[in-house]
Amino acid sequence: ALTIGIDSGSTTTKGILLEGDSIVRRFLCQTSFRPADSIIEAWETLRAGVAGKPFLTLTGYGRQLVDFADKQVTEISCHGLGARLLRSDTRTVIDIGGQDSKVIALDESGNLADFLMNDKCAAGTGRFLDVISRTLGTQVEQLDIITDGVEPHPLTSMCTVFAESEVISLRSAGIAPEAILAGVINAMARRSAHFVARLSTQGPLLFTGGVSHCASFRRMLAGHLNSEVFTHDDAQYAGALGAALIGQRQGKRS
Amino acid sequence: ALTIGIDSGSTTTKGILLEGDSIVRRFLCQTSFRPADSIIEAWETLRAGVAGKPFLTLTGYGRQLVDFADKQVTEISCHGLGARLLRSDTRTVIDIGGQDSKVIALDESGNLADFLMNDKCAAGTGRFLDVISRTLGTQVEQLDIITDGVEPHPLTSMCTVFAESEVISLRSAGIAPEAILAGVINAMARRSAHFVARLSTQGPLLFTGGVSHCASFRRMLAGHLNSEVFTHDDAQYAGALGAALIGQRQGKRS
Ligand code: SF4
Repeated sequence: ALTIGIDSGSTTTKGILLEGDSIVRRFLCQTSFRPADSIIEAWETLRAGVAGKPFLTLTGYGRQLVDFADKQVTEISCHGLGARLLRSDTRTVIDIGGQDSKVIALDESGNLADFLMNDKCAAGTGRFLDVISRTLGTQVEQLDIITDGVEPHPLTSMCTVFAESEVISLRSAGIAPEAILAGVINAMARRSAHFVARLSTQGPLLFTGGVSHCASFRRMLAGHLNSEVFTHDDAQYAGALGAALIGQRQGKRS
Repeated sequence: ALTIGIDSGSTTTKGILLEGDSIVRRFLCQTSFRPADSIIEAWETLRAGVAGKPFLTLTGYGRQLVDFADKQVTEISCHGLGARLLRSDTRTVIDIGGQDSKVIALDESGNLADFLMNDKCAAGTGRFLDVISRTLGTQVEQLDIITDGVEPHPLTSMCTVFAESEVISLRSAGIAPEAILAGVINAMARRSAHFVARLSTQGPLLFTGGVSHCASFRRMLAGHLNSEVFTHDDAQYAGALGAALIGQRQGKRS
């Protein structure tokens, strides 16, 4: 049977149409000023042409905002499930999204062992890269190309606000923007590695969420963790995928 | 003998020309892009017309940046000393400046008993009020007048970056800017009260630093601490005053 999972994040809304273990359709958009509108858009897009009403599971910040879902599940459960579908031997998930970050430890069977969540401080989230990129007039999507092979310039501030001022000073002092950006990515990767280290985790580690698409971040994170960091083309859909999977299981039980 | 104390802060540079326990001259300016320039400006202004070279003590972030000082002392020692001169029975100093905040516990004799310092997170500092005021197109100096007697609108985010977004949303939702600003001040006062509570402190509490000039902040801080909060017209000079006092003592010894 076809099931749908929608992950209503504060920055992006992701959705998956799933059949068994196979992704049939993907949906991704910037979360609207009214997040419920994005959920409705995801729902309409994913179910278009599908006979009947697929089982719908919602996760993410906005999961309570509409009343037509069959189930609402916390992000932590969905991300763990989704990560295991993307890579079946995953023991640690590090998810860095636009406005939060989490580390999830799974046991050998994929059950939740422990987790940590940060949605209080912008410095450990995609927002940090957004703010600094905007300050330097760079597109976040260009970070990889710009910083490829560039020696990072050290950055002192960890706070997004103070880092923004520091970056402006470094530019005035004539430091090249690509060296500053590499330094910013490196500082954030180091911070994320500390965050992971607060949990007792094992490999393989799967990196999910929007920031996982940044290859230079991945490389620096692997360096600071001194371990391999895996990712997946569908890594940004891990939460939605897990949500859709819950529907598949529900279907089997009933 | 005349002595000079200069407090080279990251936002403002303050200086005092002292004779015994009496302030002869004050100096205050925005810290220049090159902080050493502001120290030199303070030094030249304060010593103008003074015979000989007054004993100079430097404190604050920039205290190592020039080589003509007789002494360099940490902020914590200077703030404690300065606070006691402003109010002799002070047992707790809460100092909130442009980019840091500190709580200092003093024993009955005014000796340092314990302290806490935050210069890592903009949310507990004057920078928080600056960022939000700028977002709402308000001058920080106007906060008191604007928020006087206004019921604070609740604010969820504690992070400066997330609070900025929240404030923009609240404006779009039609909430009055003065209610938002009162909410912002209240949220920061609550956070500062938590910060103070992390130390075992006693009254009287003297509030110093740039933010101490904001009467509505003081009122809300007193409410959250459930205790009186004193301040002084010269509260922003506490560090410089303490530094100048160290010179007075030095003179007596030698
Ligand atoms: S450190 Fe900076 S980014 Fe983090 S909570 Fe504080 S203000 Fe926000």
